[in-house]
Amino acid sequence: MSKKVQEFNEYRSKMNEKILSSDNKVIKRIFNLDTNAYAEGHLSVKTKELLGLVASAVLRCDDCIAYHLDTAYKSGVTKEEMMETMSIATLVGGTIVIPHLRRAVEFWEALEEETPN
Amino acid sequence: MSKKVQEFNEYRSKMNEKILSSDNKVIKRIFNLDTNAYAEGHLSVKTKELLGLVASAVLRCDDCIAYHLDTAYKSGVTKEEMMETMSIATLVGGTIVIPHLRRAVEFWEALEEETPN
Amino acid sequence: MSKKVQEFNEYRSKMNEKILSSDNKVIKRIFNLDTNAYAEGHLSVKTKELLGLVASAVLRCDDCIAYHLDTAYKSGVTKEEMMETMSIATLVGGTIVIPHLRRAVEFWEALEEETPN
Amino acid sequence: MSKKVQEFNEYRSKMNEKILSSDNKVIKRIFNLDTNAYAEGHLSVKTKELLGLVASAVLRCDDCIAYHLDTAYKSGVTKEEMMETMSIATLVGGTIVIPHLRRAVEFWEALEEETPN
Amino acid sequence: MSKKVQEFNEYRSKMNEKILSSDNKVIKRIFNLDTNAYAEGHLSVKTKELLGLVASAVLRCDDCIAYHLDTAYKSGVTKEEMMETMSIATLVGGTIVIPHLRRAVEFWEALEEETPN
Amino acid sequence: MSKKVQEFNEYRSKMNEKILSSDNKVIKRIFNLDTNAYAEGHLSVKTKELLGLVASAVLRCDDCIAYHLDTAYKSGVTKEEMMETMSIATLVGGTIVIPHLRRAVEFWEALEEETPN
Repeated sequence: MSKKVQEFNEYRSKMNEKILSSDNKVIKRIFNLDTNAYAEGHLSVKTKELLGLVASAVLRCDDCIAYHLDTAYKSGVTKEEMMETMSIATLVGGTIVIPHLRRAVEFWEALEEETPN
Repeated sequence: MSKKVQEFNEYRSKMNEKILSSDNKVIKRIFNLDTNAYAEGHLSVKTKELLGLVASAVLRCDDCIAYHLDTAYKSGVTKEEMMETMSIATLVGGTIVIPHLRRAVEFWEALEEETPN
Repeated sequence: MSKKVQEFNEYRSKMNEKILSSDNKVIKRIFNLDTNAYAEGHLSVKTKELLGLVASAVLRCDDCIAYHLDTAYKSGVTKEEMMETMSIATLVGGTIVIPHLRRAVEFWEALEEETPN
Repeated sequence: MSKKVQEFNEYRSKMNEKILSSDNKVIKRIFNLDTNAYAEGHLSVKTKELLGLVASAVLRCDDCIAYHLDTAYKSGVTKEEMMETMSIATLVGGTIVIPHLRRAVEFWEALEEETPN
Repeated sequence: MSKKVQEFNEYRSKMNEKILSSDNKVIKRIFNLDTNAYAEGHLSVKTKELLGLVASAVLRCDDCIAYHLDTAYKSGVTKEEMMETMSIATLVGGTIVIPHLRRAVEFWEALEEETPN
Repeated sequence: MSKKVQEFNEYRSKMNEKILSSDNKVIKRIFNLDTNAYAEGHLSVKTKELLGLVASAVLRCDDCIAYHLDTAYKSGVTKEEMMETMSIATLVGGTIVIPHLRRAVEFWEALEEETPN
C-alpha cells in the first residue's frame, strides 16, 4: 500500500478510536451521521462523494479532501471527474484552493499507485 | 414571476452589467469562466449545479445559493435531491449553515410558485 | 414583545417546521443534536451558551449569534459577561467581527426591552 | 448626502458609541488599533486603505468593505484602482466574492453621487 | 517534557521574540491584548480559555488550539470539559473540524504525559 | 539557495506542471488569470503583491503567503512594509493569523539569506 495513503488511514483510525472511546454522545452521533449522509439516497454514492469533495476543497480541509478522494476513487470516480469537481472548487473558492489542489493531485496519484483501476 | 426571484434576478443583472462595462479584464474573465465551469463535461450539468450549490452553502453565500438553486431547479433537480445536497452542506459546514438552509428552502418555494414543475 | 426579537423567532420557527417536515433524516438529526449539545453536562448551560455565542461570532453568523444571545439572556448571562465573550470573539476573529458585534449589542437591547431582568 | 451612505454611517456611529460606552477594555483597544493601523507609516494611507479593502472583500464583510470604500474614496483612490483591488479579491477569494463586488460597485456609485471628485 | 509540547512551545517563543523585536506597534499591541483578554474578569480564566479554545477550533487553527489546550490544562480544565467544548465546536463548525479534533486529542495526551494531574 | 525556499518552489513547480498537463480548461485559465492579475496596471506590481499577501494572510493560506512573500521580496518590498501589511492582516483577520505571521517571518528570513538585498 502507498505509504502516504497508509499513514493517513492509520492515524485517522487510531485517533477516531480514541475519540469514540470517550463518553461524548454529541461527537459520537456526528461520526454516525457522517456515515449516513454519504449513503445511497435520492443521489448516488458517487455524486455524494463529489459533493463531499467539493465542500472539503472550498473549506480547504486537506484531511477531508484526502478522505473523499479515497472514497470517490473506490466508488469509481475517474480522474477527469475529480479534476472537474476540483475546478469548480477552485473557481468558487478562489486561488487559495490551489495549494490544496496540488496536494489532492498528489494524493490521487498515491491512490492510483496503490490500487490501479 | 415570484417577487423574491424577480428582484434577485433584476439586481443581479443590473449590477453584472455595470461590472462588465468597466475595463477590468480579470473580472470579465472570471465571469466567463463561471459560465464554462458549469457546462456539460465529464460530469452532467445537473451534478455540476449541485456541486456549485454545496460549495456556495458551506461558504455561506446566500446570493450564490439562490443562483445555483435557480439553475438547479431549471435543470430538473428535485426537492429531495436539493435537500440531500443541503444536508451534506450542513453536516460538513456545521450548524452555522442552518440559517442559509432556511433561506434556501424559502427561495426554492418561490421557484416552485413561479414555475411549477 | 420586541418586534426585532419576535420577527426573528417567527421566521426561525416557520422555516424550521418546513425543514423538519421534509424526509431528510440527516438534517433532522443535526437539529436534534443541537438541542443535546447545549444541555447541562460537564459544563453548565450558561457556559455552553457562551461557547455557542463565541463560535457563532467568530464564524460571523448573525442568526446564530441572535439565537445564542436569546438563550444566554434567558439562562442569566449578564451584559458584562456577554461583552467579555464578544471581546474574545473580536480579538480571535479580528475586526471583521465588529459589524456583528454592533448587531449583537442592538439585539441584546431588544432582549432587555422585551423582558427586563 | 446619499441615503445609502448616510444610513450606513449613522448606524455605525450610533452602535460604536454604545459599544465604547461599555466597560470592556479589550474592545476599546481594538477600536483604537483600527485607527492606528491605517495611519501613514512605511506604507501610504492610500495603499493601506486598499489593503483593508482587499482583506474585507476576501473575508466577505459588506460593512467592512463599505467602510474601506468610503475612506479609500476620500483618500483619492480612483474607480479603476478600486476595481483592480476588487479583481484581486475575486481571484484570490473566488466567485463567492462576486455578490460583495456587486454591492461594492453600488456603494461606490453612492459615494460618487454624494461627493463628485 | 513531551517532545510534541516542547517543540511547539520553543518554536512559538522563538518566533514571537523575532516578531516583537520588529518596530511594528500594531502587532505588539495585539500581542498585549491577547494577554489581557484571557485574564480573570466577569468570566473566570477557565471559562475564557474554553471560549478561546472553541473559537480556535471552529476557525480551525491548530496552533491556536494547542495554545488554548495548554493553558486550559494548566487552569484545571478536565478532559471531559475539553471534549464537551470540542463537541460544540464540531457541531457548530461541522465535520471539517474533526481533523483538528484528532490533533487536539493527540496534543491533550501529550500534555497529560508531561504533567499528570 | 535556502533549503526552505527551494523545497517550496520545487514542489510547487512539479505539481503545477502535473495540474496543467491535465485537460481541464477552467483550471488552466485560473492559472493564467493569476499571472495577469498581478501585472502592472492602474496599481503597481509592488502594491498588487501586497494586496495578494494580505488576502492570503487573512485567508490563512501558508503556501499563498510564501508565494507572495517571494514575489514581494523580488519586487523590492522592505521588511517594514511586509510587517505593516501583515499587521493589517492580523488586525482584520484576528489573532488566528498569528501562527501564519510566525511562519511568514521565518520564510522572509529564508528569502533574505538566499538573496541578500
